[in-house]
Amino acid sequence: MILKPNDTIGILGGGQLGRMLALAAAPLGLKTVIYQPQDEIGPAFEVSANHVIGEYEDEDKLAEFAARCQVVTYEFENVPAHTATFLAQRLPVRPGPNVLAITQERLVEKDFVSSLGIATAPYARVDTLADLTAAVKALGRPSILKTRRFGYDGKGQVLIRDGMDLGKAFAAIGSAPAILEGFVPFLREVSVVAARSLDGAFAAYDVCENEHREHILSRTTVPAAISPGTAAEAKATAQKIGEALQAVGVFTVEMFVVGEGTAETVVVNELAPRVHNSGHWTIEGAVTSQFEQHIRAIAGWPLGSTKMTGTKAVMDNLVGDDARSWPALLAEEGVRLHLYGKDKPRPGRKMGHATRIWA
Amino acid sequence: MILKPNDTIGILGGGQLGRMLALAAAPLGLKTVIYQPQDEIGPAFEVSANHVIGEYEDEDKLAEFAARCQVVTYEFENVPAHTATFLAQRLPVRPGPNVLAITQERLVEKDFVSSLGIATAPYARVDTLADLTAAVKALGRPSILKTRRFGYDGKGQVLIRDGMDLGKAFAAIGSAPAILEGFVPFLREVSVVAARSLDGAFAAYDVCENEHREHILSRTTVPAAISPGTAAEAKATAQKIGEALQAVGVFTVEMFVVGEGTAETVVVNELAPRVHNSGHWTIEGAVTSQFEQHIRAIAGWPLGSTKMTGTKAVMDNLVGDDARSWPALLAEEGVRLHLYGKDKPRPGRKMGHATRIWA
Repeated sequence: MILKPNDTIGILGGGQLGRMLALAAAPLGLKTVIYQPQDEIGPAFEVSANHVIGEYEDEDKLAEFAARCQVVTYEFENVPAHTATFLAQRLPVRPGPNVLAITQERLVEKDFVSSLGIATAPYARVDTLADLTAAVKALGRPSILKTRRFGYDGKGQVLIRDGMDLGKAFAAIGSAPAILEGFVPFLREVSVVAARSLDGAFAAYDVCENEHREHILSRTTVPAAISPGTAAEAKATAQKIGEALQAVGVFTVEMFVVGEGTAETVVVNELAPRVHNSGHWTIEGAVTSQFEQHIRAIAGWPLGSTKMTGTKAVMDNLVGDDARSWPALLAEEGVRLHLYGKDKPRPGRKMGHATRIWA
Repeated sequence: MILKPNDTIGILGGGQLGRMLALAAAPLGLKTVIYQPQDEIGPAFEVSANHVIGEYEDEDKLAEFAARCQVVTYEFENVPAHTATFLAQRLPVRPGPNVLAITQERLVEKDFVSSLGIATAPYARVDTLADLTAAVKALGRPSILKTRRFGYDGKGQVLIRDGMDLGKAFAAIGSAPAILEGFVPFLREVSVVAARSLDGAFAAYDVCENEHREHILSRTTVPAAISPGTAAEAKATAQKIGEALQAVGVFTVEMFVVGEGTAETVVVNELAPRVHNSGHWTIEGAVTSQFEQHIRAIAGWPLGSTKMTGTKAVMDNLVGDDARSWPALLAEEGVRLHLYGKDKPRPGRKMGHATRIWA
């Protein structure tokens, strides 16, 4: 299925990623229809004339949604498996439900990455307190206990420090199915935002270096301060993963950089089968933004150039009250301000971002 | 009235300019509401959740529209005077009705520009065939007869060649109130796309050089092949006009370049109190696009940088069947394709544009 101008893309999820996808589809002459539950109506709704409001389990609403578009994509990997499968029986869902099945469950994802011969943090399955006790014995402290599903921005995680009671730690994540991840002594966190087209072409942006505050991405700097060899290794790793997933669209591989000099290498942290916060700089910092790239890929169109438009890009997230700095950001020469149209700047809420590009 | 994020801008007109304004407002966290008559529903409707459908004379609908936004702007200068005045009694209309009054009537506009001591083509008022006969005697042939109102893309114009019957020429424009413009032996056509903020700051983009085909803009190349002195003169002319209009927002001054070497100078052709087709290259070719610049200005915010992102930009309009080349344009490295979401590629209809940027 290759789209034509004036065809319609269905987007599951109406947050800022859905919003920026819809804003990127329009210049290409593609329409969008946003699907989201009533109690989550988000910023994507403002930028598209077409909406379906329904729960992710509501088959009537999903069928109505499917009838209004030619291809479906999503802004988040926690789309319920049944939703994706139901839609995939009716029209192309890109990336496919197989990609969701792998990336929405941390243990499945880790096993998948490891099976490709790609380094990850050491990890162990944790279903019970006994599993956790054994895992901590094997992997040591500090280590991180994470729920296998529905974690993001540090939610569903607990750091196992020296002396921490394991029963309390397991209770803190609701005794949910989990994995324990061993500590990786990383020097930097980086990500590769890449895309795979319907016909299997691959393109990656320059490697992004990411800084977090309270588990939330704070700043992305491109290119990352890593050697050309490590950058090539990071991109090759992303390509290998994309091929194995048979992904169609933009996907992101978060990695740790470990070792120095000739020992510098990458260890995969996690996958996101979608556009990613660490790729927001591409809106002005690359010839083709990650949002346009995703639209091109899921439309069955050729990928666009991933070249940088300048020599360096820095993207700062505006989290919570950071967004109150909008007047200063508007007044600063060359800053590209993005606000997501959210009304309440709650702590930890991503309200927007600002990008600076160096010529 | 200075807008805050999440405020709403009302846009009169739902064509491609309204569409690109709405697409530029969203990243700044501003909402839009589009106003347009039922039988003209256009491409801007797809990219905004908020619409009011009504005739430009429908005061109830206009009042509803006014109640839903904090500031009103427009994508075309032929907004009926009563519509603009009615709205301006309720909320800020930017640029103001005074700007519309001048720019929607060719004779008023020419008198206004001339009154500033700025060169225009020689012109004469034509209300009757006798006026036309006298004007042709004074200004010579070739000369151009133009309706005073509602002309665009060559509509409402007739070229008075040698031997042409003046009665037929006047009939061809419906014997409407008109002006005759003397021929300007121009070497190039250029435009200055500029902006004036609410507090009077001025910023112009690099001068655009324009090529037309059948009276429709075909290609814009930036920077124009004119001397630095002429470029400065062109920008100073635009600034003088903007000041005199007390314009708020983006406005465009089309000019002819006449003379060569030290004799090179500009003659004003016409004004557009709005974003302009010759400024579409700014979407990728300048730090701030003309659409974002207009939104900033009418929001009462500081103007953005007008610097070019590369050394050269070329924008090609996709008129009528040109749009069928979309697959090749998508596949060409670095081309930025824009399609306006129009369904039928009628001859002369602007369907999209494509921009190429040189680093």
